[in-house]
Amino acid sequence: MLKDSIWKMKVLVAESSGFCHGVENAISIADKVLTKEQDVYCLGPIIHNKDMVERLANKGLKTISSVDKIKNGTVLIRSHGAAPDQIKKIRAKGLKIVDATCILVKRVQKIAQQLEKQGYQVVIIGDKSHPEVQAVVGCVKNAVVIGDNSDLPKLPKNKRLGVVCQTTQSPEHAGRIIAEIVGYGFSEMKVVNTLCREAIKRQKSAVELCRRVDIMFVLGGHDSANTRELAQLCKKYNNSTFHLQNWNEFDIKTVFGKKVAGVTAGASTPRWIIDKFVENLKAVDTKK
Amino acid sequence: MLKDSIWKMKVLVAESSGFCHGVENAISIADKVLTKEQDVYCLGPIIHNKDMVERLANKGLKTISSVDKIKNGTVLIRSHGAAPDQIKKIRAKGLKIVDATCILVKRVQKIAQQLEKQGYQVVIIGDKSHPEVQAVVGCVKNAVVIGDNSDLPKLPKNKRLGVVCQTTQSPEHAGRIIAEIVGYGFSEMKVVNTLCREAIKRQKSAVELCRRVDIMFVLGGHDSANTRELAQLCKKYNNSTFHLQNWNEFDIKTVFGKKVAGVTAGASTPRWIIDKFVENLKAVDTKK
Repeated sequence: MLKDSIWKMKVLVAESSGFCHGVENAISIADKVLTKEQDVYCLGPIIHNKDMVERLANKGLKTISSVDKIKNGTVLIRSHGAAPDQIKKIRAKGLKIVDATCILVKRVQKIAQQLEKQGYQVVIIGDKSHPEVQAVVGCVKNAVVIGDNSDLPKLPKNKRLGVVCQTTQSPEHAGRIIAEIVGYGFSEMKVVNTLCREAIKRQKSAVELCRRVDIMFVLGGHDSANTRELAQLCKKYNNSTFHLQNWNEFDIKTVFGKKVAGVTAGASTPRWIIDKFVENLKAVDTKK
Repeated sequence: MLKDSIWKMKVLVAESSGFCHGVENAISIADKVLTKEQDVYCLGPIIHNKDMVERLANKGLKTISSVDKIKNGTVLIRSHGAAPDQIKKIRAKGLKIVDATCILVKRVQKIAQQLEKQGYQVVIIGDKSHPEVQAVVGCVKNAVVIGDNSDLPKLPKNKRLGVVCQTTQSPEHAGRIIAEIVGYGFSEMKVVNTLCREAIKRQKSAVELCRRVDIMFVLGGHDSANTRELAQLCKKYNNSTFHLQNWNEFDIKTVFGKKVAGVTAGASTPRWIIDKFVENLKAVDTKK
């Protein structure tokens, strides 16, 4: 396929990209459980990456959205966690639980509970449809989720607010929402920093890289919150930013005439996806 | 002076403007003390308004910058408050103290002390050269004052921050600085809302008015923090905004060809200054 005189791109990979400790831990737990147990279920995709979900499905992991129809076996709690009432339901059915919740996500749940006990109205800055946020909401009696400015009217006026963030949000976004809350009105606001430092490191490293390249690729699941946050950030600093799940989504037309490409990946993107993408990209002929 | 066919402007006064409770209280205390006592001193201008300072000086109030040379008499603590070591010094000299500190400013001092006791690094969002801020700084062992982004490096990284605001700052400014702190890094941030609602009301009312007029006048001392904040806000929404101390600073050229003028005033601007300004403005011929 390759011609003798092809134009090859320089491909730079972000210093910090790919699996974070939480994801690595969840995958390693899943791999171990699958070698030991039969009938292993995961409550929702273990991580937001179809390639990895597929790999584990081939090893026997069954992804389910509810335990209602499960009679026996082991239920894996994915990295995003689960709400206490879900856990209770699993226990009530006598199913075995293996908890692969990321420790940082677990921390957000605990902090939200503490803030509520201290009399604060719990506020979660995050995406209300994301399982991590839903699990935190499920841990307290009454939480308000603020995704963007349009959610502000849900806040009670001039109250004591206890604020946590979905771990994968950027400090930039969290700061913007907190500033909006200040303008909206509050009496006291206790913000506990629940942002994941690994995610911030990836964001900084991606922003740095995408400023130096002609085109930027952000690899990861389209439903992965941290990958989407990465892609949104990169788009701000480099308009030629593409969020792709893997090499299959690559469109050669996007790189015609480009000389330097940057590659980064979300915390739930397996190394093999990144390596394959970089290898293929290096071999591409960018001549129109 | 007035001609038969002059062009007169419509003059609209902001719904909320002029003296706030704190200033009214300080002036009323000063007036009372001056009728009863002799040798009455004020530690710094009682409010940031030269016209009022002059009026009280004529009644006998002596404004001083230090009590070092005072041997006897009464010292009035102005609306912006004084640091505990200043108060101690006055007491040590056996001078009588009359405290006219605004209750909201007093509250900021108490909250800063409580936050420090709770183990927070006290952070004051405000102008470090303003007496209110200096008094709050003097109430705690170690405070960091953040006036703008350039002060951020003074913050310790990833610590528990206890944040208060100079009472006259706008929620917009406070929010912007808090967002910057989120981006800078912190472990926990407890923000107590110490913003003056009267000041916010004046700000909202001024912004609303200045959008509807051809020219906007913000009346008050040039060293008055809340008047400056008002003027800065108005300038954002109406480029023809002028911050004047009183009618003496009015320049007729600014109103030539204008049809509608707006007037607002800081919390330390006496009613007589506003009334005289409005009266004179209404009589001005705006024809070039």
